[in-house]
Amino acid sequence: MDPGNLTKINRWKLLLFLLVSSGLQTVRGLWPLPQSISRSSERFSLQPDAFYFTYGEHSAAKYGCSILDEAFKRYFPLIFPDYFHKPSFHPRPVQDPSFTVVVSVDRDDCQGYPGEDSSERYNLSVSESYATLNAESVWGALRGLETFSQLVYQDNSGTYYVNKTDIQDFPRFPFRGILLDTSRHYLPLQTIFKTLDGMAYSKFNVFHWHIVDDPSFPYQSRTFPDLSSKGAYHPSTHVYTQEDVQRVISYAQLRGIRVLPEFDSPGHTLSWGKGQPDLLTPCYRGGSPSGTFGPVNPSLSSTYEFMYKMFKEVSQVFPDSYIHLGGDEVNFSCWKSNPDVRAFMGKMGFGSDFTQLEAFYMETIMNITIALNRTAIVWQDVFDYHEKIPQSTVLHIWKGLPPAYHDELARMTKAGMRVILAAPWYINHISYGQDWRNYYSVQPLNFTGTEEQKKLVIGGEVCMWGEYIDATNLTPRLWPRGCAAAERLWSDEKQTTSVDKAFPRLNEFRCMLLRRGIQAEPLFTGHCKQERPMQALSPEAHGLQKNNRPQEETGRNFHPLAACTIWTNLKS
Amino acid sequence: MDPGNLTKINRWKLLLFLLVSSGLQTVRGLWPLPQSISRSSERFSLQPDAFYFTYGEHSAAKYGCSILDEAFKRYFPLIFPDYFHKPSFHPRPVQDPSFTVVVSVDRDDCQGYPGEDSSERYNLSVSESYATLNAESVWGALRGLETFSQLVYQDNSGTYYVNKTDIQDFPRFPFRGILLDTSRHYLPLQTIFKTLDGMAYSKFNVFHWHIVDDPSFPYQSRTFPDLSSKGAYHPSTHVYTQEDVQRVISYAQLRGIRVLPEFDSPGHTLSWGKGQPDLLTPCYRGGSPSGTFGPVNPSLSSTYEFMYKMFKEVSQVFPDSYIHLGGDEVNFSCWKSNPDVRAFMGKMGFGSDFTQLEAFYMETIMNITIALNRTAIVWQDVFDYHEKIPQSTVLHIWKGLPPAYHDELARMTKAGMRVILAAPWYINHISYGQDWRNYYSVQPLNFTGTEEQKKLVIGGEVCMWGEYIDATNLTPRLWPRGCAAAERLWSDEKQTTSVDKAFPRLNEFRCMLLRRGIQAEPLFTGHCKQERPMQALSPEAHGLQKNNRPQEETGRNFHPLAACTIWTNLKS
Repeated sequence: MDPGNLTKINRWKLLLFLLVSSGLQTVRGLWPLPQSISRSSERFSLQPDAFYFTYGEHSAAKYGCSILDEAFKRYFPLIFPDYFHKPSFHPRPVQDPSFTVVVSVDRDDCQGYPGEDSSERYNLSVSESYATLNAESVWGALRGLETFSQLVYQDNSGTYYVNKTDIQDFPRFPFRGILLDTSRHYLPLQTIFKTLDGMAYSKFNVFHWHIVDDPSFPYQSRTFPDLSSKGAYHPSTHVYTQEDVQRVISYAQLRGIRVLPEFDSPGHTLSWGKGQPDLLTPCYRGGSPSGTFGPVNPSLSSTYEFMYKMFKEVSQVFPDSYIHLGGDEVNFSCWKSNPDVRAFMGKMGFGSDFTQLEAFYMETIMNITIALNRTAIVWQDVFDYHEKIPQSTVLHIWKGLPPAYHDELARMTKAGMRVILAAPWYINHISYGQDWRNYYSVQPLNFTGTEEQKKLVIGGEVCMWGEYIDATNLTPRLWPRGCAAAERLWSDEKQTTSVDKAFPRLNEFRCMLLRRGIQAEPLFTGHCKQERPMQALSPEAHGLQKNNRPQEETGRNFHPLAACTIWTNLKS
Repeated sequence: MDPGNLTKINRWKLLLFLLVSSGLQTVRGLWPLPQSISRSSERFSLQPDAFYFTYGEHSAAKYGCSILDEAFKRYFPLIFPDYFHKPSFHPRPVQDPSFTVVVSVDRDDCQGYPGEDSSERYNLSVSESYATLNAESVWGALRGLETFSQLVYQDNSGTYYVNKTDIQDFPRFPFRGILLDTSRHYLPLQTIFKTLDGMAYSKFNVFHWHIVDDPSFPYQSRTFPDLSSKGAYHPSTHVYTQEDVQRVISYAQLRGIRVLPEFDSPGHTLSWGKGQPDLLTPCYRGGSPSGTFGPVNPSLSSTYEFMYKMFKEVSQVFPDSYIHLGGDEVNFSCWKSNPDVRAFMGKMGFGSDFTQLEAFYMETIMNITIALNRTAIVWQDVFDYHEKIPQSTVLHIWKGLPPAYHDELARMTKAGMRVILAAPWYINHISYGQDWRNYYSVQPLNFTGTEEQKKLVIGGEVCMWGEYIDATNLTPRLWPRGCAAAERLWSDEKQTTSVDKAFPRLNEFRCMLLRRGIQAEPLFTGHCKQERPMQALSPEAHGLQKNNRPQEETGRNFHPLAACTIWTNLKS
């Protein structure tokens, strides 16, 4: 045992002691677990009327920094859930018994968009009268505000408390994503916003928007409006307009969440064909076209012209530095049946190896993406068939159980490629009982490889494919099951090995989600102290969000009376 | 092939022809499939402003029959979902182009409560200008109104239509139940009401209220108030008051649904012990009490006095002719450890056969139930251990897969006992994909036995046990999966053998549920025409049910303007 380890173990023992000594009630709700936390049993009461957020004297961001100003407004009612007054904003701390959260960031990235290199590190120190929250960037400050909100609790009389606490925290992986599939079922904006709320609460930072696929094309393109007018389930009610997309991006950005668009091709594109003639490959039967269509036609130059225009638009609409190109599950039978495709194969010297054709297509659109100054992500299939792909590309593992995905991780990182792991978190698959335990027990770096290789694993993703999912069941199916991956991707794996120890903390976090209006399903038999009001009357029900707008747009328009009615009529 | 069969086959072919010829759109939503239906392609438009319900001249029930009057009010907005005026009620048909549904029943059971012998048979005939709905009882008329509401559809312009139709219908089984478990998780009244709505739409007729169990005792007893004040999760927010129970019973009664209370004992009673000292058996370890408790203590006379008073109250509070006594999963280890129980065993001559003790206990409370003029239902365990139980008792099968439950059906009916089958419909168990297909394929009478034996199978039940279920996920998990059992228990099995043929019809029915405010999850990839408004804005959201009261209590208080807002702001 080396001295470094000894120090770690002592620190860990101290942490355990502090966790136990500070009382379970105040510990359980913290999710994901911070990298380092010390908390004493000394506690300070908080008065909502004398609670303030402010910027530190030396903070690069000041009042007017919309990302943090908006966060202060959001977190006030989250910290004081049954106090419905406007949040107070004061430029500097005031006299006792006030409590002020002093936020300082090193960089003024208030107008920025979160990216792959954004720092999410923060230090949070809670003392009497004030807390200091220091971060390199506004994104780290957002994570710290979330943590602070989880530290506050109420005793039985309803008084709010926070314990003396010191936290140093940062994410284990920079990429912590959730995929929603809006093609198999259309998801209303409210459902997407609600998911982004839950993501912010559990510190996910990438919304992977699998926006189109075979069944429908809901993205309303400005370059190719026919794609949605002919390819969506309904041309006006089941589409995402440009304005809708911007609202999603803004909503996510304010929460430090990137929006990663996926336009999957050349397979999974049936819906594209309805609005874009000649894009898909006509399948042949017995020497003539059968009337059905296969993947995108890789033998026509018009295909690449279309794709260039399409991805140019995507790169203009979505500010993220990544674009997901799909590339999974390409069925060759239609290509094989088509004489023009076969002729092209011959011309290119591919023989009868259709993986070469697939690689040719994917290489071209990856190059388009690079030319548009974007990083391409592709599903693992592209690597499996074609190991020489641009080094900047990020690979996305979706197949198999361990050791299959561990072997794939080893192969990909050995080739020097960056990787995102989704395979163990296909959360749309359900089974009876506490399957979150399986999601929690995943060990993303448990593969054979050097330290350098392991650094190439940039994160993981929870996938909620949409065959059996729409707005009716998404939220309870995603939460709290998805939280298991949230902790695995954020927290220190050594500190979070025990599923049983995680259980009560996750249970409390789930109750907090419920109290915040996320209809997270129960982990097991039991109840939450504050479950009834939120369940009997959703935020929509008491008029806070009647107009179907995201929360920050109504942030200044609380109706204190309407809201108070909920809490005085618990039992109706 | 006998002539009877031939006739059946011809009738079936005719039915198929009619189904096909009348256009898919208008057929699909009917669920469960009526016993006999003939429908022509001739259709009549309906004008909400000139649509009336009335009683037939010779109907035994007249205006003032609250069960039907209330049903007319409920069905008007269900038939015309985007027309938010008050329903019209006229004593007799008026002039063209009006449409009148003329309802006649043979018996004035308007003040009645549905029972095991209630007729649910009805005949419905739709012609130009009017429909006649004839039934023996108001309960049959309710089923016919539901069917009529499912016959009405809208074309793309929004005009309402109904086709010329003749239906003769009756249920295959008289007992078609859904079990909710309000002990493992407390379910708010709104969640129970919503379930009763879904039950009425799919013609379930028994709400089996598994109201208490080990984890909590939410029933607020007037005789033993400590049971809930000490045994509920929370003594005021997580209880069902006497008024709550009456509201559930009334809500169900108005929909022709019986409320069957279950107070499960002697096992599954941990929560009872908190408010009733000496009721549970103290478990012993090493010669002294361990501090833990087991099943109800069957060796004390105070136990039977308590049970008599408890079930007397239950029989006064719940009007149903059945009381469910539980009797499942009794663990003998605690009884075995207790010297008083062992002494009682000796005194009774039971030796070391604890099943005799269990039988003694169950026999006593079954006799109490009979003395209270109620039919007892018990889980199959009681029969398995003790074949000689009162002949009036109904047995409830919950264990095993076929052929296990088919064998049990054979044994029980051979003993002349009436049986309810729940084993194949434990719907809280989930798996990925379309598991409703399994629930649909159940053949309840596919066991070896005489015709007389088969008549003893009085029905089946969908069980939604509450370990992983609360208000957050109950509705999408119950619907439309539970509908599979609804059709199996109502419709002719020969006409409903094909799961694939049922699929599009169930899919449309699910869309109708969604439109009616039941958040039924999708069967597969796709969309519903009218899904968006109901999902984006729940009934609560537009102020129709702000006060958390059941629908009929606000039936006369529609807010047409508030409601209209929904439909003019589809895309917000």
